[in-house]
Amino acid sequence: MVRYAAGMSDDQNFQIRLASRPVGRPSAENFAMVAGPVPAPGDGQVLVRTQYLSLDPYMRGRMSDAPSYAPPTEVGAVMVGGTVGEVVASNAPGLSPGDVVLGYAGWQKYGVQRASGLRKLDPAVAPVTTALGVLGMPGFTAYAGLTQIGKPKPGETVVVAAASGPVGATTGQLAKIFGARAVGIAGGPEKVAYLKEIGFDAAIDHRSPDFKAQLRAAVPDGVDVYFENVGAHVWDAVFPLLNDFARIPVCGLIGHYNATGLPEGPDRTPVLMSAILRKRLTLRGFIQTEFVAELMGEFLERATPWVRDGSLQYREHIVDGLENAPEAFIGMLDGRNFGKLLIRVS
Amino acid sequence: MVRYAAGMSDDQNFQIRLASRPVGRPSAENFAMVAGPVPAPGDGQVLVRTQYLSLDPYMRGRMSDAPSYAPPTEVGAVMVGGTVGEVVASNAPGLSPGDVVLGYAGWQKYGVQRASGLRKLDPAVAPVTTALGVLGMPGFTAYAGLTQIGKPKPGETVVVAAASGPVGATTGQLAKIFGARAVGIAGGPEKVAYLKEIGFDAAIDHRSPDFKAQLRAAVPDGVDVYFENVGAHVWDAVFPLLNDFARIPVCGLIGHYNATGLPEGPDRTPVLMSAILRKRLTLRGFIQTEFVAELMGEFLERATPWVRDGSLQYREHIVDGLENAPEAFIGMLDGRNFGKLLIRVS
Repeated sequence: MVRYAAGMSDDQNFQIRLASRPVGRPSAENFAMVAGPVPAPGDGQVLVRTQYLSLDPYMRGRMSDAPSYAPPTEVGAVMVGGTVGEVVASNAPGLSPGDVVLGYAGWQKYGVQRASGLRKLDPAVAPVTTALGVLGMPGFTAYAGLTQIGKPKPGETVVVAAASGPVGATTGQLAKIFGARAVGIAGGPEKVAYLKEIGFDAAIDHRSPDFKAQLRAAVPDGVDVYFENVGAHVWDAVFPLLNDFARIPVCGLIGHYNATGLPEGPDRTPVLMSAILRKRLTLRGFIQTEFVAELMGEFLERATPWVRDGSLQYREHIVDGLENAPEAFIGMLDGRNFGKLLIRVS
Repeated sequence: MVRYAAGMSDDQNFQIRLASRPVGRPSAENFAMVAGPVPAPGDGQVLVRTQYLSLDPYMRGRMSDAPSYAPPTEVGAVMVGGTVGEVVASNAPGLSPGDVVLGYAGWQKYGVQRASGLRKLDPAVAPVTTALGVLGMPGFTAYAGLTQIGKPKPGETVVVAAASGPVGATTGQLAKIFGARAVGIAGGPEKVAYLKEIGFDAAIDHRSPDFKAQLRAAVPDGVDVYFENVGAHVWDAVFPLLNDFARIPVCGLIGHYNATGLPEGPDRTPVLMSAILRKRLTLRGFIQTEFVAELMGEFLERATPWVRDGSLQYREHIVDGLENAPEAFIGMLDGRNFGKLLIRVS
């Protein structure tokens, strides 16, 4: 017997679907808002009302049908995304109406999900939104990339791209916790000031005309770990500063996601390959999912106390209303968010 | 008291020095042949008469003053290189005239070397030339790159560039010993036939007009490890065939060493970075020296029996006369050697 919460019967679902695949920068026309009935949970499933939807750069990849590590979202399908929500109907043991859960319902107000794919959250431990940010996928991405690939030693220099974002800010603070020097790169003076506030040793505005010179001055001992989230001109500035044996976790390339062609020549691939050989660099692309089974427990155990005692700070950028998700998402790809971007759905 | 071997007094030294830095492909003019007196060993040193000089692609890097992992050879200095030779005068305990040693005397007939930098060879264990090849730096390069970076699992596919060279041939045979599938890439039908003879599962001629198609057909399950020795069009052919989580030990880029400029555009760097991310590739440049302390003992212990029982075969390309070293070296950069290139000096 499905257990429903009170006052559900009149409500409607509301979804944002992929209407068409963007060429270059996405626009509002690529999204369709669709109202419909609230679905009913099958056996072993629960119905969850989304409270917060996480918006993340990887979603740009799902909108495209270019080859990727994950199949694309089909045109006409609901946009995917991590969500925190309240169970409103349960057909599964262990979850009851009122429970708050972390799930992957996507861009919709109501979603039916398998109970086995959900994690029950305890709001007394940390605000539930942290499960989408510093204690969720972005924070875990930082932890996995840094501990499994970057492996900074005490005293080494860690440079972080997109450093005011949820992955970058966590990466820099973790680097500090691990005894390294953290240098953040972000867009605009506000973000740069924030990075210094949360403990980065230096922070550089990649929009400054003298960005390259500023970065060089900020890493007098070169760069031992570069946590790559951006590519493009940020990579170009960091590249010549890499030390022998530098490690480069390649986590994202947000500066390329909207590109519709390649930069003009010459082809600089041999420059990169030759530096990899000569400086004995490690470049390693990763998606956090590959490390979840092995490492998520350890991460939550270590990072939760750091969040609670303030040694791991976070910043959220909350936009109200699911209907505003497309605009917020497009703005994020332009770097217009400041902190973990969340949509407050209900 | 220096102990000299008999019949030394009238002999002369003969050296090949760097006369000028090559631009692009080296030519005979970049080398100078110089006769001179035989040097005398100081305290703790021995005088060694070179029997074999190893010629290796890395020497092209030392001829250039472009930034590298090692300082360039100064113009006017003797060309560097690994050597096997006979001790003819000893001023050090533990080494006597007649001993055969592995050292680093460079392109010269006689060299004075510190005894502590030499390894005494036992010709009864394996031919002494193997200390410059399959049981020397090239063989160890293959072992280190494969065990520390490539890490092939049984059943995985390992593709090897420059596969008939001493590094490549060892890499492929080690891959087989470790239970993987080995696919070699080499230039010309003779080399391809040789690769099949020594146990590669498939071998492809990169000079074939349908090289790319042949390679694709030879790796029906994609490429899990690509041992990079070449770059250029060989890399271009392997690149699209890399599997998710492929590992690429970047050991050499002989296809680039003589380049004087970059290929024409567009700039394909974003294609590479995006594949690193999407396929979660590992690219890791290395020079075998970083692994010597930790791994050389293990390598010799494991590989010597493989060489003795024939499970690790090798091929030598021996050129007589030190005066022929420049031409042989230039030919090697063009891929004209077939097997480990050695100069028989005396």
